[in-house]
Amino acid sequence: MEANADPNCVFCKIVAGQIPCASVLETDEALAFLDINPLARGHVLLIPKRHAAKLDDLNASQAGGVLRHLPALGKAVRQATGCQGYNVLQNNGRVAHQEVMHVHFHIIPRFKGDDFQFNWPAGGYAEGEIEQVREAIRSALES
Amino acid sequence: MEANADPNCVFCKIVAGQIPCASVLETDEALAFLDINPLARGHVLLIPKRHAAKLDDLNASQAGGVLRHLPALGKAVRQATGCQGYNVLQNNGRVAHQEVMHVHFHIIPRFKGDDFQFNWPAGGYAEGEIEQVREAIRSALES
Repeated sequence: MEANADPNCVFCKIVAGQIPCASVLETDEALAFLDINPLARGHVLLIPKRHAAKLDDLNASQAGGVLRHLPALGKAVRQATGCQGYNVLQNNGRVAHQEVMHVHFHIIPRFKGDDFQFNWPAGGYAEGEIEQVREAIRSALES
Repeated sequence: MEANADPNCVFCKIVAGQIPCASVLETDEALAFLDINPLARGHVLLIPKRHAAKLDDLNASQAGGVLRHLPALGKAVRQATGCQGYNVLQNNGRVAHQEVMHVHFHIIPRFKGDDFQFNWPAGGYAEGEIEQVREAIRSALES
């Protein structure tokens, strides 16, 4: 297993070869494989091999080393499935629909009239509010 | 403007400073700013400065150079908004809900009982089917 693997984590077990997977790409840092409960045929998961529960448990180098593979995977999924588009989705926390507590990026093929749906309840900011939020995020980035 | 900017692209205009934005992070390759029509307060967009309509119009180095900033942005959004989780979402094609044809990663703060929702209509594979899909994606990756 990876040095920091969680022995109870299903994705760490997949990385270690203890649970089989239909892998499509593997590097020293990253593994991509087919989701066995796909939202559509060709639904792929891209994960870091090292255990990290949430995206922000990775550092910049680790994230870049994994996520650099997203374009090639997206193109390959498009070519292999004939999908008309695709979503990349990554969920952090139960409230955001995270079910396996090891960072994973979903690549979800999309077809007109398919079953995966999300709404888009866009709002706005009151006058001056966006600057407050901006400063709060910038301060957090600098801390 | 960037060398390959699309003069009709609203995000290229933001990168060029022709349209203002509430930026939170900027590097030579990447820009992150607040979505002015947020799904939640603190909804951030992370984009490559160079114009690319779809994720797979970027190469691996370009994707890695932009997406390495996702963990820090996710953490900062979490700290600044007090959200309980967050989604990272990137849409390719109208069928996948892409509205601006310049690659952008949404960082969407999530709160219990909030309005952003998606379903999860997970299916399965018939016997032998997952291996066929795997080979099709692997072949596409190698081509």
